[in-house]
Amino acid sequence: MASTNPARGTRDFLPADVRKREYVIGIIKEVYESYGFEPLETPAFENLETLTGKYGEEGGQLMFKILKRGEKLAEVTKLRSYEVNEETSKLADLALRYDLTVPLARVVANNKNELPKFFKRYQIQPVWRADRPAKGRYREFYQCDVDCIGSTSIVVEAELISAVSKILLRLGFDDFVVRVNHRNTLFGLLRKYGIPDEKVLDTIVILDKIDKIHRTGVEKELSGQGISTDVSRRLLDALEHLVKSDSSSLTGKEKLAATNVLKLLEKFESGFERTWGNKSMTVIAPPREHDADLEKVAKAAVRNQAFFLNLYKELDGDPAGFEGAKELASIVGTLYADTEASVRVLVDPTLARGLSYYTGTIMEINVPDLAGSLGGGGRYDGLIGMFGKEQIPACGISLGLERILVVMDERGMFPPEIADSTPADVMITIWSEETAPESLLLAAELRSQGLRVTVYPEADKLGKQIKYADSIRVPFVCVLGESELADGTVTLKNMRTGEQQTCDRNKVREIISVG
Amino acid sequence: MASTNPARGTRDFLPADVRKREYVIGIIKEVYESYGFEPLETPAFENLETLTGKYGEEGGQLMFKILKRGEKLAEVTKLRSYEVNEETSKLADLALRYDLTVPLARVVANNKNELPKFFKRYQIQPVWRADRPAKGRYREFYQCDVDCIGSTSIVVEAELISAVSKILLRLGFDDFVVRVNHRNTLFGLLRKYGIPDEKVLDTIVILDKIDKIHRTGVEKELSGQGISTDVSRRLLDALEHLVKSDSSSLTGKEKLAATNVLKLLEKFESGFERTWGNKSMTVIAPPREHDADLEKVAKAAVRNQAFFLNLYKELDGDPAGFEGAKELASIVGTLYADTEASVRVLVDPTLARGLSYYTGTIMEINVPDLAGSLGGGGRYDGLIGMFGKEQIPACGISLGLERILVVMDERGMFPPEIADSTPADVMITIWSEETAPESLLLAAELRSQGLRVTVYPEADKLGKQIKYADSIRVPFVCVLGESELADGTVTLKNMRTGEQQTCDRNKVREIISVG
Repeated sequence: MASTNPARGTRDFLPADVRKREYVIGIIKEVYESYGFEPLETPAFENLETLTGKYGEEGGQLMFKILKRGEKLAEVTKLRSYEVNEETSKLADLALRYDLTVPLARVVANNKNELPKFFKRYQIQPVWRADRPAKGRYREFYQCDVDCIGSTSIVVEAELISAVSKILLRLGFDDFVVRVNHRNTLFGLLRKYGIPDEKVLDTIVILDKIDKIHRTGVEKELSGQGISTDVSRRLLDALEHLVKSDSSSLTGKEKLAATNVLKLLEKFESGFERTWGNKSMTVIAPPREHDADLEKVAKAAVRNQAFFLNLYKELDGDPAGFEGAKELASIVGTLYADTEASVRVLVDPTLARGLSYYTGTIMEINVPDLAGSLGGGGRYDGLIGMFGKEQIPACGISLGLERILVVMDERGMFPPEIADSTPADVMITIWSEETAPESLLLAAELRSQGLRVTVYPEADKLGKQIKYADSIRVPFVCVLGESELADGTVTLKNMRTGEQQTCDRNKVREIISVG
Repeated sequence: MASTNPARGTRDFLPADVRKREYVIGIIKEVYESYGFEPLETPAFENLETLTGKYGEEGGQLMFKILKRGEKLAEVTKLRSYEVNEETSKLADLALRYDLTVPLARVVANNKNELPKFFKRYQIQPVWRADRPAKGRYREFYQCDVDCIGSTSIVVEAELISAVSKILLRLGFDDFVVRVNHRNTLFGLLRKYGIPDEKVLDTIVILDKIDKIHRTGVEKELSGQGISTDVSRRLLDALEHLVKSDSSSLTGKEKLAATNVLKLLEKFESGFERTWGNKSMTVIAPPREHDADLEKVAKAAVRNQAFFLNLYKELDGDPAGFEGAKELASIVGTLYADTEASVRVLVDPTLARGLSYYTGTIMEINVPDLAGSLGGGGRYDGLIGMFGKEQIPACGISLGLERILVVMDERGMFPPEIADSTPADVMITIWSEETAPESLLLAAELRSQGLRVTVYPEADKLGKQIKYADSIRVPFVCVLGESELADGTVTLKNMRTGEQQTCDRNKVREIISVG
């Protein structure tokens, strides 16, 4: 007999799971909609050539490919002369989507004339990767993508970070950090410290693992790529020095200097003066509700001021890297309009992101109790051009639904109505086959009053019907027995307290609402 | 350059499409939930063996199969000795789900101890079939399934028909009919009119096409199966006679006889007397709001009374067929509790349904302006037993989302807020790069007041920003220029009337709500 398990690395979602997923998806949609992003959906599979060559070698190997059908398959298998490594291109013509970004790029290229100049879309759908399943790693998982197509402005990055921060706050996360970096500053630093051009992409893939394999692991893997220990040490020292930037590295003059960050803060009207730790400084910022937030904004501003001064020094003489650094400063500065997001943004010069299609800003969201990320993304100004004649700039962030759910489950973050959901507000019993229509009629009445009503489907013993009601945890049972039918009443049983009362059927709605 | 079209037979859903789909799905969910059905989700693909042999030969050929990966694929292709018709079992290990019923059966067998005794679930997900694409026929399409597992009671059928009728009425359909039949009455009639046992399933598949190929087509195909013209004519005559059952075939005594239908109607307290056409009769029925409905209920009751008397006569001496007929009568009788559904139910002795796993009631929903059906289903008491040790009865209906959308589009049935949706309630302009944070701050303020707000992402010429707002059809634009920033106001432009006014930023929400 065949196994009844779902396929390896996939999961069935029973009702309690679906309700949790829909709760999170509902909040994500609501926030994206409030920012003016619109929904898009694309097919589960794409033509194989649409996905080929977009994710790097590793990504390509993880694609689920769909076997050709009928005559086309027969043609291929008749040949019998193909090489093993040619199999997939001959045997398959479709593949399940690996992410939501490449399908978006295809859609944009395909619908250029119908889509607005700036296309702000969100997309919440499953993707599939033939990865080795592990704790929290599945072969089918949902991504919640939000992207803005058509603009190179850093306002895009600021709004994306603001939107995903709002989502995480609405879900109850308050300890997340949005790390940002820029591919050009990273390239600039790698060049400056002696990584040869042809090793830059490999180095980025290795750097991306620094959270998992730590500095020693990165040095080892770089050495495996033929990069000398001297080069990799100097590079990692420089990155660490940048990470540790704080106000102590600033002169008094520098502290007050009009960096990009402070320039932007100065635009706001009211200011405040504040002391923290053993340092004090003046920061101009918009009025906010919570002093704690003000303090965090100020701290972040000074840290960023120090960081950018150090970064600018590092990239002096590298125009592309310097421009990247200025973009990062603009994003951070613009984000001061959203206090809640701005105190959670951290410029991290070590952030690399593995995917090859990023061209500018890169972003990643982390919480302390999760090894991986809750989401990530970046700017990919070259991807859409791979599908059309025209280069169209684009930037987006993808939230990982499964990771969010794992952390919310572990931390018990679901509201009670989701965590303890019931299939109905009330169950109606059936007295006999002949009175079944009466039970259905009462159910219809109560539904028309807004209640969720389930009817026990059989004329079973009353005890069995009550036991079933208990097993599905409905809070009330409406008994419609012989005497109740005779005098137009119902007996309503509160399953939590055990109390029961006989009442007019018109009173049921009211009693359930109070109970 | 690769094509930018979606794969053959699949579609991209742009925002306006998604909003329509979500509107319909939202109503379907709400109604299913109000009946106590709970959501289930299963993976897009299943192990190949889970799906194999469940849909008949034709179904099996339409499955999308997923190529094995890595070493497992290499092993197979190294063999090079397999036969062409063995390809798929050797080359593929997974397949995209073909419907939502077989995955449900697997889930029930796999989670027997966690699921309640009666598992009432709905599931709204895409399925995939490698069918030849045609108008309204896609390779990826959504099914909206509702099923009750664990009971053989006809209350299940009555509730399912009531729920899907409620959905269609909520969506604005008022001319649908739910046709019902029973596999055992159909088998009984086929046996009685001389179809040999081994041709019964083929005959059902042919009968299923009667709406498309008409009586002459059915006779021709039956003849192709070796069934004599004499046999097929007598069978089709008998079915037609049943279809045409009406009160004229009843004696006065029969009209008043206590058929199952009238027995059930008599249980209700109030009655009414009514005349229509040139006939008059007394019907006992529950009190209803609309006289028109009462008349329809009475008409349907008499038609059904005549129909069942004829059907019982036909099946006299065929215990299984007779039991099937009695079940149909009970379903129809029980449904009189739901006037709106009961007037739309039609027992159709020719209804066949193609799938092999049905064992009892079969159902199909039609509207006059659609060649295919809006949905269908039936009882499948044997399917779950194919996955476990235990036979568990089950019955369900599947609504076809794509068909519903096609008809709603053609008839213009979407409410204006869905048909003319906009990406945001208001767009905010950006005056200069330096004032971008001010625009984002205003956006955050308005969002906190419940508005959907989009920000133009660049410090462009004002005219271009307004033109873009027009292109995405936002009803209002908030201009935040130099003077507005200086005195804490905004200029609010109503894009429909062209009017604009400068006002305090606190007034924006109010003006937009009124406008």
